[in-house]
Order: sequence, then C-alpha cells, then structure tokens
Amino acid sequence: MFSDIKGGGVTASLGFRASAAWGDIKGSGKRRLDTGLLFSDTPCRTAALFTRNAVKAAPVIYDAGILEKNADNIRAVLVNSGNANACTGKEGLEACFSLAKEAASLLGAPSSSVLTASTGVIGEPFPAGKISAVLGVLAGSLSDENGAAFAEAIMTTDTEPKEAAVLVEGPSGHYVIGGCCKGAGMIAPSLATMLSFITTDAEVPSELLRRALSEAAAVSFNSVTVDGDMSTNDSLFLLSGGMSGVKIDEKSYPAFRDALSHVCVVLAKKMAMDGEGATKLVTIRVKGAGCAEEARLCASKIANSPLVKTMFAGCDPNWGRLMASAGASGAVFDPAKTDIFFNGLHYVKGGVIIDRGLEKDARSVMAGREYEITLDLHAGSGEALFYTCDFTADYVKINADYRS
Amino acid sequence: MFSDIKGGGVTASLGFRASAAWGDIKGSGKRRLDTGLLFSDTPCRTAALFTRNAVKAAPVIYDAGILEKNADNIRAVLVNSGNANACTGKEGLEACFSLAKEAASLLGAPSSSVLTASTGVIGEPFPAGKISAVLGVLAGSLSDENGAAFAEAIMTTDTEPKEAAVLVEGPSGHYVIGGCCKGAGMIAPSLATMLSFITTDAEVPSELLRRALSEAAAVSFNSVTVDGDMSTNDSLFLLSGGMSGVKIDEKSYPAFRDALSHVCVVLAKKMAMDGEGATKLVTIRVKGAGCAEEARLCASKIANSPLVKTMFAGCDPNWGRLMASAGASGAVFDPAKTDIFFNGLHYVKGGVIIDRGLEKDARSVMAGREYEITLDLHAGSGEALFYTCDFTADYVKINADYRS
Repeated sequence: MFSDIKGGGVTASLGFRASAAWGDIKGSGKRRLDTGLLFSDTPCRTAALFTRNAVKAAPVIYDAGILEKNADNIRAVLVNSGNANACTGKEGLEACFSLAKEAASLLGAPSSSVLTASTGVIGEPFPAGKISAVLGVLAGSLSDENGAAFAEAIMTTDTEPKEAAVLVEGPSGHYVIGGCCKGAGMIAPSLATMLSFITTDAEVPSELLRRALSEAAAVSFNSVTVDGDMSTNDSLFLLSGGMSGVKIDEKSYPAFRDALSHVCVVLAKKMAMDGEGATKLVTIRVKGAGCAEEARLCASKIANSPLVKTMFAGCDPNWGRLMASAGASGAVFDPAKTDIFFNGLHYVKGGVIIDRGLEKDARSVMAGREYEITLDLHAGSGEALFYTCDFTADYVKINADYRS
Repeated sequence: MFSDIKGGGVTASLGFRASAAWGDIKGSGKRRLDTGLLFSDTPCRTAALFTRNAVKAAPVIYDAGILEKNADNIRAVLVNSGNANACTGKEGLEACFSLAKEAASLLGAPSSSVLTASTGVIGEPFPAGKISAVLGVLAGSLSDENGAAFAEAIMTTDTEPKEAAVLVEGPSGHYVIGGCCKGAGMIAPSLATMLSFITTDAEVPSELLRRALSEAAAVSFNSVTVDGDMSTNDSLFLLSGGMSGVKIDEKSYPAFRDALSHVCVVLAKKMAMDGEGATKLVTIRVKGAGCAEEARLCASKIANSPLVKTMFAGCDPNWGRLMASAGASGAVFDPAKTDIFFNGLHYVKGGVIIDRGLEKDARSVMAGREYEITLDLHAGSGEALFYTCDFTADYVKINADYRS
C-alpha cells in the first residue's frame, strides 16, 4: 500500500536535507540554480547504476570508486548542471576528489562519504573553482524544504523540475521514498543523460537495496527514450538512511520494490514528456512476443524510430511505420497476425487495417497529450512497455543550437 | 581502369532500354512520373539484395520467389512510386503476379522473367489497376534514352533523380556499369527504403555477380544512413546482359567489383546528400579500432546519432557528442587516446581538445556542404567509413506531414 505525496521529492524522506545555489557554471551570467547539495543526517546505504558508455564522465569514475569501498556510509551528493565534467582528462577527476574533500570538511563528514554528479556540455574545462566558491552557501543552507530547489539545480534543457514521492504503509510502520531527476536530451535505454537521486527513510539491507534499484530501473529509466543516445554521465542513486525505523526484509521487499518502481516510473514518464521539443508522451506496449526480451527489443525499436516519432508529432496513424519498425527489431512474428491498437481503438487486425473510416478516430487519440499504442504480435506471451515522446522540429532546433 | 560516364544511368549499358509514365498512383492528381519499366534485349543474369525487415513488401516476396528459380533469365523490372505495396495482404502479392504476367505478355517474354519493385506509403491498398492502365504506354515507349525518366519515376521524397555510370576499359575490351536509385527517407544500414537498379553489358557468371553485389553493397548502400530506420521494400538489383561481349572471370573480377563499388558509392552518397531535409553530406571515418567490425559499429553509431546529426545542422564542433557516441557503440577503446579530425584539422588529441582557438576553423569546415570527420581510436587497425547527413527541422516537417 502506498500513496503519492503531492509535491514530495528528495527531501520527503526523514533525515534528508538539500540546498541549491547559483555558481554561474556555464559562464553565461544567466542567474539560475546550477549547483546543489543533498545531505543525510545519518550514514546511508547506497546503491547506484551508472552509464555503460565506454566514455565515462569524471564523477561517474569517481563515484564508482567511492561506492566500491564505502557504499554503506554515504552522507552527501554534490551536484552541478552546466558542465558535464566529461572528456576533461586528469583535471576533471582531480576536481571530483578536491570538491568532495572540501564539502566533507564543511559538513563534518569523511571525504569518502561524498558523491558527486554533473550534467551539461561535454568536453569543456570543468570550473571547479566556481563550485568551490558556493560550497559554503550550499552547506550552510541545507533544509528539508529545499528538495524542489535541488531538483531545479540539476536541470539542463529540462523545462521543469521532476519530483516524485510516496508514503508506504506497511505492517511494521510507515516509510517514505522520494526522488528527483533530470532528463530532456539524450535519454535512452541505459539511462542516457539522466541524473536521478532517490532517498528513503526505510532501512534497507545492501543486497535488497541493489536488487530493488535494478528491478525498478528496468521498468522505468531503462524503458524510456528521447533520442536513442546514451550519455557519459547517466547516474541513478538510491540512498537509504533508515530514520523511519522501518526495516525492509525479504518479506516486505516486494512492497518496497513496487513503491520504488512507482516513483521511478513517474520520474521516467516526466522525462519522456519533457524530452527536448516533445509535446506528447506515448507508451509503446508490445504483447504476444516470443519472449520478454523480444518484446523489449520490439518496443524499444518502435520507441526509438525517428519515422515513428515524427508521425506522433504529425498525429498521423501511419501504422505501416509501426509494422516496419517492429519488423526491423529482430523480434520474430508473422505480420499477417499482428494487431495494433491506439488506446482502446482496435485499428489493425491480422496485419491489415480494419476499416479506413477509423482513421479519424485514431487521429483523435493521437491528438491527445498522452496515449498508448499496443502491438499484439500473437507469437507468444512476451510483453514489454517503453515510454517515448514525439520528435518535433524543436528537438532539432534545441540540439543544433545547444552550445550557443 | 574506369571513368565516369557523365549523365549515364541504367540505360548506359548496351542492350538496356527504359520507359516511364504517369499513373497517378498516389491519387493526388499531381502530374509526375510514377511508374517505370526497365527492359533488357537479352536475358540477364541477376543478383539482388533485399531488406532484412521481417515485414517484407509484396514485391520483395514476389521477386525472391522469381529469383530463386529464374535468376539467369530476367528480362524486365516493373516499378512504381507512390505506394509501397507493403502490409497489403494477399491482394498485394496477387497484384505482383498479375502485373508481371501482363507486362510479360506485352513484352513477348515469360512471366517469370519480370521483376517488380514499389516504394511509397505502407499499408494503403495497392492500385494495381492504375499500373495496368499504363503498361501499354510503358512497353511501347522503351528507349535507351529513358534512363533519366526511369530514375525520376522511382522518386518519393527525393528532391532529384540519382544516376551513375562508368566505362570500364579492360584487356579484353570495354564494358559499362550504370545504375540509378531512390532514397531520401528511412535510409539506413541494411539498405533501408532504397530501390536501386544497376545494369551491366559485361557477361558475369552468377556466382561472381552475387559476390560483386554483396561486396559493393557493404561499402556503399550498407554504409549510408539518413534516419536509422530499415524499410519493408529495400531492394538492390544487378542485371548482367552481356551485350558488350566482355566476359568477367576470376582474373578480371577485381576490376569489375571496384567499378561496381564506385557506381554504388556514388549513388549511396547521392542518397545521403538527398536525405530528407538534409543540407550536408558527412563522411564518418573510424580508424584504429580493435577490428573492422568494431570500426563499423562505431562509425554507424556516430552516423546514426540524432545528437551528432543535429550538431552537423548547427555547424557546431561539439566533439563531446562524437566521443559519447563512440563510447556507446560497443567498440573497445581508451577515450584518453582518441584523436579527432575535421577534414585535415587535428582537433582532439589524446581525448582532449588541442587548442580552443581551433573551434573557428572547425566551424568553417562544418559550414561546407561536404566534409569528413575522422576518429582515430588507437586501439588496433580496424577501419570503416559511413556516409550520413545532417538532421534538420525540415526532416521532421517532411515526416510529420508525409501522408497529407
């Protein structure tokens, strides 16, 4: 049993505080929050998932090293937007170490308890000095009311902060899971340019914490795409502080995992909906595939196809593109048995359109801000979901002009 | 030794004639060539490559059947644009049989010597009657001067016809290889929505013909991308009529294959350059990869990345996106050893930018209509080329509004 906490985010869990400041990281002089600090009053067990890109940003390399040794004693995460600290060589990595050390000293915590995360332009020198300059402000303004400001500080081309939180009611008491994320460009399978921070005041053993994060990510952040690219910086953190006093064990694990999955799905959908230039959130559901993996391949291929995504922008039920994408996915199926639905509207049956008169109805489904397309391949019982958005001319504009 | 034949196309080879007509296939009433016939005075040995999409258009299924039995006796190919005859069920396949039979009877050739090819919208009923209505005109107007008209008849969102031809001078005489293609949308690895017809008046044994086509396709049509999609209709045909009297054997094979590859590369580059909304042709060269396959993976990933392609549109040397794409490709390399060049300009050395002052020079390379980006991974000797184009707002506009 869980319920959404309206307006809740990363500080909704007991014992977590946050802050945000303007460090002019991008050097544009434009006044906006671009640095943040998340702090836990107690040492946290921490699980994390990072990009599988061979080119990893400095904070990803730094954090992986910290978590290898000290995953059960994390106290803080220092974040910035405006510069990814990726492709920045030795200097970039040294900046992570020195900033973590500085932050730790201000917070009265060990250096090895501070993680870092960055997002923004790749390949620009990392302005460590600017972050250092605001560390005092960040450490001095920590509050459990600053979750939203923290969520704002990690935004890049995002148009709005993304937060979610739930209150879980269990037999041994109540606990909270809360989080925030940034997405927008380059979101894709494998967590592409996504930063996400999730906290809980439940006490979760390390092994269950890792398992829950991996299971929740599979149905959320790893099932969302904006442009099929995978970034150098993707990071997903889950911190368990334990201040609620509720302990998760094998028996209460399913409820914890389901509540965590819900928070992750809400955040992932917000990312897809806020994809660069996007105006629509489209859920691709593939059922009847030979196996779950083929269903996922097929849903992902459709969700990533520029031809399909431009068709969403045009509200055009050009179902041939859905068939062609499914056919190119590697999933094994008989096109002559395939059914397609737009929300509840049965549009294609056995590989052919049921009635051309239905096109108007399909168009009106597609005119909505949020809808679901289902392909039933009738080849087995494999099923998968993927969240995607439309591909508009604004996506191109945003990305052609991103640095200027 | 070969030289380009200016203005040459599918009828540049001796013994080949073509025709084109307006059949109003799309039903828009807009007067433009949309049906065509290619005819050979002699039976042709024929090799072909088709889409690997699980959803295959009717002509692809029909042609594969014909070529399985009669690949050494092909006389004609009947083509249309405006309707892909894909996802058209049993009626679509029956239309191929009946139209081929009708055309064969007009040409005085066996039914099994006529191939068909279609391109256009998927999932619309195929207007076989409209094609039947112009068959007489097509058969009656065959001429060796109609190569360009045939090339025009297969265009969809292409902005211009694409032709190429070479004269090959060998020890045993001269022969010609000539062809045309259509591309524009959905071009990708695996020949996506591409139709290409290549003829030669050399006499080539079946096995060498197939080998040459497969080797030439690998370095041309299978190394070009517009949007990473793979269509239901992609077909590449190579017809050998033999009218020049020159016979190709193992010894003269390399010269034949190289000349054929050249024709295919010229056509493939024209496709990339004419990608929907494209304004630039960019060649991605990856060298120093662990093996040729990794080089190809890496070049393909970069060439298909929407973030990279929008950066081409913006003339922005945002090399971090090149690194991130390479890193996401699966190729194994050390980012700290990677070099990047824009044409001759050495821009990134050992994973970091050489001099920020060079950005202006890189921008001026990228302002050109055609340039090359080289990544040297310093991980081995694998090398690969990929041709791509920029991703502009016009691509989205074209594909959002395609059917209306």
